Amino acid sequence: MLYFDHNATHPLSRVAREAWLDATERYIGNPSSPHRLGARADAALTQAREKLAGWLGCEPRDIVWTSGATEANNAALYSAAANGAKDIWISAIEHPCALAAAEQYFGKRRRSIPVTPQGVVDVEWLAKALEISTPGLVGIMAANNETGVLQPWREVQALCRAQGVPFFCDAAQWVGKLPAEGLGAGDFVSGCAHKFGGPQGVGFLKVPAKFRPLIVGGPQEDGRRAGTENVVGVLAMIAALEEREAALGTHGMAERLGWHEEFEQGLRAALPGISILGARVSRLWNTSAAIMPEQADCRQRWVVKLDKLGFAVSTGSACASGKEETSHVLAAMEVSADAASRALRFSSGWETTHKDWRRLLDGLRQAHAELTA
Amino acid sequence: MLYFDHNATHPLSRVAREAWLDATERYIGNPSSPHRLGARADAALTQAREKLAGWLGCEPRDIVWTSGATEANNAALYSAAANGAKDIWISAIEHPCALAAAEQYFGKRRRSIPVTPQGVVDVEWLAKALEISTPGLVGIMAANNETGVLQPWREVQALCRAQGVPFFCDAAQWVGKLPAEGLGAGDFVSGCAHKFGGPQGVGFLKVPAKFRPLIVGGPQEDGRRAGTENVVGVLAMIAALEEREAALGTHGMAERLGWHEEFEQGLRAALPGISILGARVSRLWNTSAAIMPEQADCRQRWVVKLDKLGFAVSTGSACASGKEETSHVLAAMEVSADAASRALRFSSGWETTHKDWRRLLDGLRQAHAELTA
Repeated sequence: MLYFDHNATHPLSRVAREAWLDATERYIGNPSSPHRLGARADAALTQAREKLAGWLGCEPRDIVWTSGATEANNAALYSAAANGAKDIWISAIEHPCALAAAEQYFGKRRRSIPVTPQGVVDVEWLAKALEISTPGLVGIMAANNETGVLQPWREVQALCRAQGVPFFCDAAQWVGKLPAEGLGAGDFVSGCAHKFGGPQGVGFLKVPAKFRPLIVGGPQEDGRRAGTENVVGVLAMIAALEEREAALGTHGMAERLGWHEEFEQGLRAALPGISILGARVSRLWNTSAAIMPEQADCRQRWVVKLDKLGFAVSTGSACASGKEETSHVLAAMEVSADAASRALRFSSGWETTHKDWRRLLDGLRQAHAELTA
Repeated sequence: MLYFDHNATHPLSRVAREAWLDATERYIGNPSSPHRLGARADAALTQAREKLAGWLGCEPRDIVWTSGATEANNAALYSAAANGAKDIWISAIEHPCALAAAEQYFGKRRRSIPVTPQGVVDVEWLAKALEISTPGLVGIMAANNETGVLQPWREVQALCRAQGVPFFCDAAQWVGKLPAEGLGAGDFVSGCAHKFGGPQGVGFLKVPAKFRPLIVGGPQEDGRRAGTENVVGVLAMIAALEEREAALGTHGMAERLGWHEEFEQGLRAALPGISILGARVSRLWNTSAAIMPEQADCRQRWVVKLDKLGFAVSTGSACASGKEETSHVLAAMEVSADAASRALRFSSGWETTHKDWRRLLDGLRQAHAELTA
């Protein structure tokens, strides 16, 4: 089975597996315990915090370990609201967990930041809106999970800083695929391990100095997240990210962008009528989302057909794909409900090869022929 | 280093490690994904849910996977409060996370259930109080983390059922050390893997039909806990518990209670003036908490001395041991602040041998001789 659903979850990388196994032997103590084994685990967590802070560009003390990006996003919006942020402006294409947490903690005190038909947050709209009034928090993701479209988080971060507005950035799909540098200058930044080859069930939140915990009842993480720390998970996550941050500095990214571009060119040639989402803007090197041609049936049939041919692809966000509603991301991009019902997402991993992309293209050709026969 | 701090965190068991590694290869998909790899991961989670429900005695659909017992306890109390529970009665010796969550979600609408000087929840007090009025929720842990004292959760569960009062039971220290059977008849039951040889960062909450999620924004867990499921962690947790549930059915528990009893007898003989907490009531086979003799200095000196001699022991709950305040558990048992400052906890694992307990006793003799020299 060729796996092209890495944006849903990425298989564990070799280095993360080794780091995990190593940590289960070396760091068996609870970091809060008073003996040497506890101190050793605590020191390992401290070192991990220093590494992540270095990549993000923030202070180690700003990092709070979480169970993943969903908890991190919930915690960020809870904290902002609990600390009195009067309202939130949040992009229309955020992950469902950020949108749901915004609704949970801000209710009607939220405003949707529009995106262009290419799926990019409308910075001009935001700049103008901020001239008129400023909210208690602005939330923009770094890269969209459904389309791979890169968001102007640097510009939004700068705009927010200029206006003194706290900035929340869900970087779950960015971290590990592009360098994390600069993200840490925002107030809240979330990420999770299983999107870049670390284990499931662990992530992080970069927090501002004033932070109120969602999960209470222990001195862990300086009182900002109660519960025994997942030392082993954190160390495996950091090992995965260390490998990725190093690899991102090499020519690997340009090479992968090339394979991605070749795949999309092939797709357009092979499947007339296909429309690639966000085709005219910068996207992750690993993600292609497309509206499949009209005559070839709905996306569920595509998934099943490709599955039989040995390819795991997705209809969009795994977190929303159970529902048959139109994706809120595609709706915000003014894709019609009919077109959205034909959306497929192909997302590779760092280990995906040039040949894998070519095989996927062949698979899509074959599936198309069979579906339109 | 001989490890006697299993109540803080238990090293990963061999079967859990194998299950974890196996799952990272076999279940690489996101359970919410529409392809075969997603369906396979989802089926594995379903099977895990059935197993846990079988041990607890509840329906598989009542199980929600969490990042651990701290999240589970927070989620239980959040849900009860959000669903309109007017107040909570909670034992004075609960884990700090349950007490903090009770404060967070019920504020002053909470009442402390007293314990006897032996550290057992006072069921008579509770029965009488319930005749006069009934709260929106009663919370009693199954076994205390600091003393190992078993709590009358079966009686309290029955009392609550008779009065129609929802019952919350933090079973983090019970599950995996004693059979889980019967716990599932309560409304909320929490547990976590790393207390019985499963990995850190994963746990569960048995929930009632009407449940409101603490972490929102995804259809996972039937909308009761958003976020990509930690499939690998859950499967490793269930493997660890499966082994433990099977072992608990053998003579292993009686044997271990014997070693524990022998250790305490030896301790009393070797260290005159020592006082074992909850000595006259049923306790976990793995936990001894003691007030060390007066002439031998504070507990921190003991920990350091034992550490040098090669024994990892604790001053009490890892979640509270950073603080130098008197343990709320010991205070509730009417232990003086002075005596509490000399409290030590020894907690073994299933893999701890008879010989290990004897070596610990020898170590304590030596430490005592050196500390009183």
